[in-house]
Amino acid sequence: MSDSIKVTVWNEYLHEKKDEEVARVYPKGIHNAIAEYLNTQPGIQAKTATLDMPEHGLTDDVLNDTDVLMWWGHIAHDQVSDEVVDKVYSRIMDGMGLIVLHSAHFSKIFKKLMGSTCNLKWREAGEKERLWVVEPGHPIAEGLPEYIEIPHTEMYGERFDIPQPDTLVFISWFAGGEVFRSGCCYNRGNGKIFYFRPGHETFPIYYQPEVQKVLSNAVRWAAPADGPKPNFGNVKPLESI
Amino acid sequence: MSDSIKVTVWNEYLHEKKDEEVARVYPKGIHNAIAEYLNTQPGIQAKTATLDMPEHGLTDDVLNDTDVLMWWGHIAHDQVSDEVVDKVYSRIMDGMGLIVLHSAHFSKIFKKLMGSTCNLKWREAGEKERLWVVEPGHPIAEGLPEYIEIPHTEMYGERFDIPQPDTLVFISWFAGGEVFRSGCCYNRGNGKIFYFRPGHETFPIYYQPEVQKVLSNAVRWAAPADGPKPNFGNVKPLESI
Amino acid sequence: MSDSIKVTVWNEYLHEKKDEEVARVYPKGIHNAIAEYLNTQPGIQAKTATLDMPEHGLTDDVLNDTDVLMWWGHIAHDQVSDEVVDKVYSRIMDGMGLIVLHSAHFSKIFKKLMGSTCNLKWREAGEKERLWVVEPGHPIAEGLPEYIEIPHTEMYGERFDIPQPDTLVFISWFAGGEVFRSGCCYNRGNGKIFYFRPGHETFPIYYQPEVQKVLSNAVRWAAPADGPKPNFGNVKPLESI
Amino acid sequence: MSDSIKVTVWNEYLHEKKDEEVARVYPKGIHNAIAEYLNTQPGIQAKTATLDMPEHGLTDDVLNDTDVLMWWGHIAHDQVSDEVVDKVYSRIMDGMGLIVLHSAHFSKIFKKLMGSTCNLKWREAGEKERLWVVEPGHPIAEGLPEYIEIPHTEMYGERFDIPQPDTLVFISWFAGGEVFRSGCCYNRGNGKIFYFRPGHETFPIYYQPEVQKVLSNAVRWAAPADGPKPNFGNVKPLESI
Repeated sequence: MSDSIKVTVWNEYLHEKKDEEVARVYPKGIHNAIAEYLNTQPGIQAKTATLDMPEHGLTDDVLNDTDVLMWWGHIAHDQVSDEVVDKVYSRIMDGMGLIVLHSAHFSKIFKKLMGSTCNLKWREAGEKERLWVVEPGHPIAEGLPEYIEIPHTEMYGERFDIPQPDTLVFISWFAGGEVFRSGCCYNRGNGKIFYFRPGHETFPIYYQPEVQKVLSNAVRWAAPADGPKPNFGNVKPLESI
Repeated sequence: MSDSIKVTVWNEYLHEKKDEEVARVYPKGIHNAIAEYLNTQPGIQAKTATLDMPEHGLTDDVLNDTDVLMWWGHIAHDQVSDEVVDKVYSRIMDGMGLIVLHSAHFSKIFKKLMGSTCNLKWREAGEKERLWVVEPGHPIAEGLPEYIEIPHTEMYGERFDIPQPDTLVFISWFAGGEVFRSGCCYNRGNGKIFYFRPGHETFPIYYQPEVQKVLSNAVRWAAPADGPKPNFGNVKPLESI
Repeated sequence: MSDSIKVTVWNEYLHEKKDEEVARVYPKGIHNAIAEYLNTQPGIQAKTATLDMPEHGLTDDVLNDTDVLMWWGHIAHDQVSDEVVDKVYSRIMDGMGLIVLHSAHFSKIFKKLMGSTCNLKWREAGEKERLWVVEPGHPIAEGLPEYIEIPHTEMYGERFDIPQPDTLVFISWFAGGEVFRSGCCYNRGNGKIFYFRPGHETFPIYYQPEVQKVLSNAVRWAAPADGPKPNFGNVKPLESI
Repeated sequence: MSDSIKVTVWNEYLHEKKDEEVARVYPKGIHNAIAEYLNTQPGIQAKTATLDMPEHGLTDDVLNDTDVLMWWGHIAHDQVSDEVVDKVYSRIMDGMGLIVLHSAHFSKIFKKLMGSTCNLKWREAGEKERLWVVEPGHPIAEGLPEYIEIPHTEMYGERFDIPQPDTLVFISWFAGGEVFRSGCCYNRGNGKIFYFRPGHETFPIYYQPEVQKVLSNAVRWAAPADGPKPNFGNVKPLESI
């Protein structure tokens, strides 16, 4: 048990309370739908946290006990306090993994880590998406077919204004004519970050088995590696000069 | 003349006014030493701007007329206003190049673009540095020898907490036993960014011909490419769905 | 004139002589269609070479006088002699640029440079392709719109078994449901390599202005940078040990 | 046991039989020294193979039962048959990991995978090397200190003529004034490749605990990910066109 990867699934948790259609799809919220799936996977222990909790549920105790943070946000990015964002950022620099879902491309923490606008094209027409695996040897592609089809989804299209990923795992095709870099891996500080495009509040995408498989693969990939914690600042020479 | 690359060399310009030793090396400031060199190069037109000017000399008019911004800062990063940083950032997203010199690794604009702490090891012992070209086919290596020796310099050592460069051009060796990724290229937004380690306020490094050659090569590399300006936001499908 | 980039456009030149339909589209061969366009561009001088010439037209004199080699092949990759491939390879290691077109993904020289199978999916159905610019600040995207539409083309689909590009400039969308990494930049040795997907023997793709623009941009990007020629082998220490 | 990673440590095994000094350091050969260490590690099962065996010990049965192949060669690269190299290459394309040690930078298999000359500078003066971890969040850095010191070693210096690594984990400093990219990760086909510089036939480097730790970390990182096996060739459209 002590070797499990500890995941905190964070959700702004607003849509599900305000909108009946969303509540029908995710009655306990997107965070619980994902956490329940993750808790079926060996070696993963998932909890949840939401915007309305004190410190958005991301207290020092919670963050220090989190190996991988998963982030869903959409309409309330601005309500996340800068102080919490700074703490999350510091934990990532120290090695915590971060998995950024769908509309969280515009979250404060993702924009801060990317250093670019993270802007994109979008359209809500319920069209078809097909995610192609372009790096089949990557751990996040484990157990997947050559492509994942999502029958109805919101479209995100290029130009996606992000730094070129350290590794690009998925590229999406959309019926309406666009493409998108949908699975993007980054090292930042001692932490690993994975952006994953699929997901929506009114389509049941996080119940789709291939999508769930990507989420658990990503958790394992993003878990801290326990590498050296760098020393910074003024240092003495290691050789006589 | 209209095809020249327009460079603005920015300097916090404090050391040179406070410290006699610095003033002896750079009597008109580091910014003017660099700009004077750049103005000897065909196809480059350089001006300067400093912290003490209104809006730090980086007004909308100046930024809109700048193809490549070169940045030196050391002891006054915090005095640069966030508003100016945001304007510089927006211009880079739109395509302006940025060349970040030495201690400007800790400038607000570089940290904002990198999304990591940009921390490092350092030592002021006047030791020897040797920069090895590791990507000799890159335009920034044009006309250079296999390595550049800097007889006396401040040391910067790894771990340098930056995203892995899109292209790594130089790696430094230091007499005291450290190494450093000293020439780092990044695409961010429509802009190009080059971090270059050498330079110091009391060593005459920016007068060294190979170092100057790197600076003019970097200006040419970082000049805007005039690619498509992305459209973002809600879009209609290009195909019938 | 002496500062012009010297391009050699190589073509196996078989389809055009065997097949009336191809000959109607490219009466003087694909190589001449491309070379004629390139010769309208300032600072570029293009010649041609073909498989049936002695040494396939790629003698030492020709290669030593070539800054950028463009390569078209389709049905006769095996007829290219290993000796010529080795010479081309050596010139690339020394700095010559290489632009690999469409079906030349399976050329001996490209497979040798990539170190992977370069295999892919394909279909000849004359369907629509849309190339999206995903790195708009890259010099190869200069002057382009956000996407290029090719009304009728052969499809190439992922997984494209190549090393992750150093920079990925284009991603293609196909009507039949596939995506493809269509504009891929690599540094190898002192040389630069650009793989560009579009092109076909029976569709007039190399007459399309945006496609031509990519070709001339790629020539400028791939031109040798005149960096240091590395010394290899046994060396004396630069410091006393 | 069935979940163990199966490693084959390959050695040309010539130095150890010809040279008393080498035999004193590695009495059972470098391959056995490494395999014995690996077999002390949980979840790893290592066997060995050598040049003088039929098919160099790399029969179909052996290769099909190998998850990660480790390769040491120095003076007999040319004696490795092209047929065996082609089989190893095919297995890597299918997902087998490859760890390339020290002088195996010039092995046929590494050069074939890199597509460049893999040339470098070298010197046998028994000088000091210090490997700095530059990507501390990478799995291969797990459990390591900030740097590894090797008191006496052969020097390898830049320019190392390789493709820019997908991830660069280590940079070496040498007493004689050179630097080197000493830990280089690549994806090729479905396989993962790690080049690791340290090691020599007369210095006891593979008995050094930090070096051994890198080897077992690399085995875990390079183990096959069981991603999708791509389908190549002519395909039907997935959408009506």
